[in-house]
Amino acid sequence: MKEIISVIRINKVNETKQALIDAGISAFTATGRVMGRGKGQVHYDILQGAEAGHPEAIAQLGNAPRLVAKRILTVVVPDELAQTAIDTIIKTNQTGKPGDGKIFVTPILDTIRVRTGEEGDVALN
Amino acid sequence: MKEIISVIRINKVNETKQALIDAGISAFTATGRVMGRGKGQVHYDILQGAEAGHPEAIAQLGNAPRLVAKRILTVVVPDELAQTAIDTIIKTNQTGKPGDGKIFVTPILDTIRVRTGEEGDVALN
Amino acid sequence: MKEIISVIRINKVNETKQALIDAGISAFTATGRVMGRGKGQVHYDILQGAEAGHPEAIAQLGNAPRLVAKRILTVVVPDELAQTAIDTIIKTNQTGKPGDGKIFVTPILDTIRVRTGEEGDVALN
Repeated sequence: MKEIISVIRINKVNETKQALIDAGISAFTATGRVMGRGKGQVHYDILQGAEAGHPEAIAQLGNAPRLVAKRILTVVVPDELAQTAIDTIIKTNQTGKPGDGKIFVTPILDTIRVRTGEEGDVALN
Repeated sequence: MKEIISVIRINKVNETKQALIDAGISAFTATGRVMGRGKGQVHYDILQGAEAGHPEAIAQLGNAPRLVAKRILTVVVPDELAQTAIDTIIKTNQTGKPGDGKIFVTPILDTIRVRTGEEGDVALN
Repeated sequence: MKEIISVIRINKVNETKQALIDAGISAFTATGRVMGRGKGQVHYDILQGAEAGHPEAIAQLGNAPRLVAKRILTVVVPDELAQTAIDTIIKTNQTGKPGDGKIFVTPILDTIRVRTGEEGDVALN
């Protein structure tokens, strides 16, 4: 199993989730963390304001191109779906402009469904 | 070392943490992320409202059974405590109904205690 | 590639990010999650209040020394910069008092830059 962690624009999250579903990826997804690029210092209040959709906060982020509010979208998939997930995320988020985001791939050793105790790929469905 | 990431009901977090402590697991834990199932689109405002305990938000989540506000509880444990952690989380969260949650197991290569510089399992205590 | 996850004091995040930049680490960083120590039960409202800077919330955290509001700072770096990142985080956060935090090291299998499709260490810059 792999965890595919994409750090993408806030306004791309739902479109990306839908594209993953359309690609047959119904694995668990998580969203929620805010992000900043390493080259700048992130002001958490501004990020939170931008997340909440306040135009003033978004405008302040916009003035500092390296400080971009991002949402993390995490998908856990069987190994054989990892490349499909990556391709789908790229296709949905690639505008060619800076800020399109990044994808990180990490290993998942096991997944367990709490309700049944099932382990492995079957627990992802 | 292993990271045991459980995605569980919001109202089960403290009970689960206490059960882990009772099982001798005093390792570092983290909470805070909100989650949604991959099959639906999550409305972040509603999730946040539900997290804050607003009945209206919780009711809206309740109308869409696949959109469940969850809390992530993360524990980092020595390898020999991984199964105990998993069993404890299952026991505490298994109701037999959909929404009991999932557990993901990931590798941790090392842990360092900042105060002393200690590395390895000893840094987890 | 390695993910270096540091769980540090809230008021050390920006100083730590700057120190990482000064050490030549411009890799992707993330912040945003709140944390609690495993030995206690964390009251999320209090943590959020402390995050927002409310003195009452911070004072309540202060009364229970094991319940410390922390921020997670994540850096993804090429393997050869992992130790530099760890040393920099220790140097910036080590006061010798309890609560200095922890560092977790996890494997990252791959990183992809969405804009260009580049993979590997080059995608981290």
